[in-house]
Amino acid sequence: MIQSPDNDKLKTIRKLAGRKWRDKTRSFVAEGEDLIAAAEAAGWPASMRLVAAGSGLDGEEVAPPLLATVSQMGSSTRALAVYPMRWAPEPAGPLCVALWGVGDPGNVGTVLRSALAFGAGSVALGPGSADPYGHKAVRASMGAIFRVSTGAFDDAPHPWIGLVPRGGTALAEAEFGERVTFVLGAEREGLPEDVASSCDLLASIPLDEGAESLNVAAAGAIALYERARR
Amino acid sequence: MIQSPDNDKLKTIRKLAGRKWRDKTRSFVAEGEDLIAAAEAAGWPASMRLVAAGSGLDGEEVAPPLLATVSQMGSSTRALAVYPMRWAPEPAGPLCVALWGVGDPGNVGTVLRSALAFGAGSVALGPGSADPYGHKAVRASMGAIFRVSTGAFDDAPHPWIGLVPRGGTALAEAEFGERVTFVLGAEREGLPEDVASSCDLLASIPLDEGAESLNVAAAGAIALYERARR
Repeated sequence: MIQSPDNDKLKTIRKLAGRKWRDKTRSFVAEGEDLIAAAEAAGWPASMRLVAAGSGLDGEEVAPPLLATVSQMGSSTRALAVYPMRWAPEPAGPLCVALWGVGDPGNVGTVLRSALAFGAGSVALGPGSADPYGHKAVRASMGAIFRVSTGAFDDAPHPWIGLVPRGGTALAEAEFGERVTFVLGAEREGLPEDVASSCDLLASIPLDEGAESLNVAAAGAIALYERARR
Repeated sequence: MIQSPDNDKLKTIRKLAGRKWRDKTRSFVAEGEDLIAAAEAAGWPASMRLVAAGSGLDGEEVAPPLLATVSQMGSSTRALAVYPMRWAPEPAGPLCVALWGVGDPGNVGTVLRSALAFGAGSVALGPGSADPYGHKAVRASMGAIFRVSTGAFDDAPHPWIGLVPRGGTALAEAEFGERVTFVLGAEREGLPEDVASSCDLLASIPLDEGAESLNVAAAGAIALYERARR
């Protein structure tokens, strides 16, 4: 049983709380039995698995108060595991969501979850987007991080439908087929001009007068729904 | 200029961080110039307004380090204000969203924002739902809290369309008109049986096999979009 705070495995978990170490080691942490079960169901093996001593769970035992010190959720976590990242060489189609400047990790995780729900093969991430392998994004994905691949923004397959708060073709009238990437931008700034001009079509979700915009994850869910509905 | 941490106004702000004091005084705090501007645009007057000394903003000046100590966002806040809550005697229709057991304040705020975007008159809140007047919900609402009224769950106008992860009529085929309340439940537990049986119709958003559910705010946005689209 691990009982020392200086244990190397605990040190690794602590360091993986930061994006720098995650990027360097190409690995990340998932906390809680639900997420670990999701990884298992997806056939994604853990490189390390730590559990609270006495929990009866499968993994190397750690004194519970010590496990709590390396957890992002404190003493409520009875198990955590480390996984290798899986960035796809190319974001998989035919359906993809690409995020530009989506800095909130909860939104990134929620988009992953919606992507899985509507059969998207991948989520592509551009500059300024939160790390999909960070704690909050992994939690918000509810395990979808293990089922939907992540890839680089520029490689997302065309045609691109850029979602903009206003001025685009009404989403319900926008023409797109099975194969499409929905491109979503930062909530305030929207899509930068060069990204917007790389889109094959700009679409907008018609909103009531006086409403400025939707949450980016809500807009993404609506776009995915609209395609699934057709 | 307020310079003492024992100042009564600062004490009030600190206490309003807790739901108990908000419920007791029927008032809440909004932080940041954007939210304060949203309240003003909605004609919702502040009962107190504090600003960082030297910011040039309108309100009673507070020594900046002191203002940071009562802020939920630390030193990035230059202004905060207290507002009276406005619970509607009855949730306003014809379009309403009712939440049951939605404990995450970010989700409650995002639903408020989507409600405004699609012209809902109110959001009704049942047991176990996060306080829409708490800091995180107010932030996530992006000011919609000042435009959409809040009301009690049971008073939401019928017909009720309950959104369930599976087993309901496909949302796109569900029959409803202008006047409708979308009822959304906790993400894990869904709607309790008695609430489900109070619904006039149960509807589901068809998901890919292997996907369990959508984030509740994403599901709400989709339902509101589906009605607007028709």
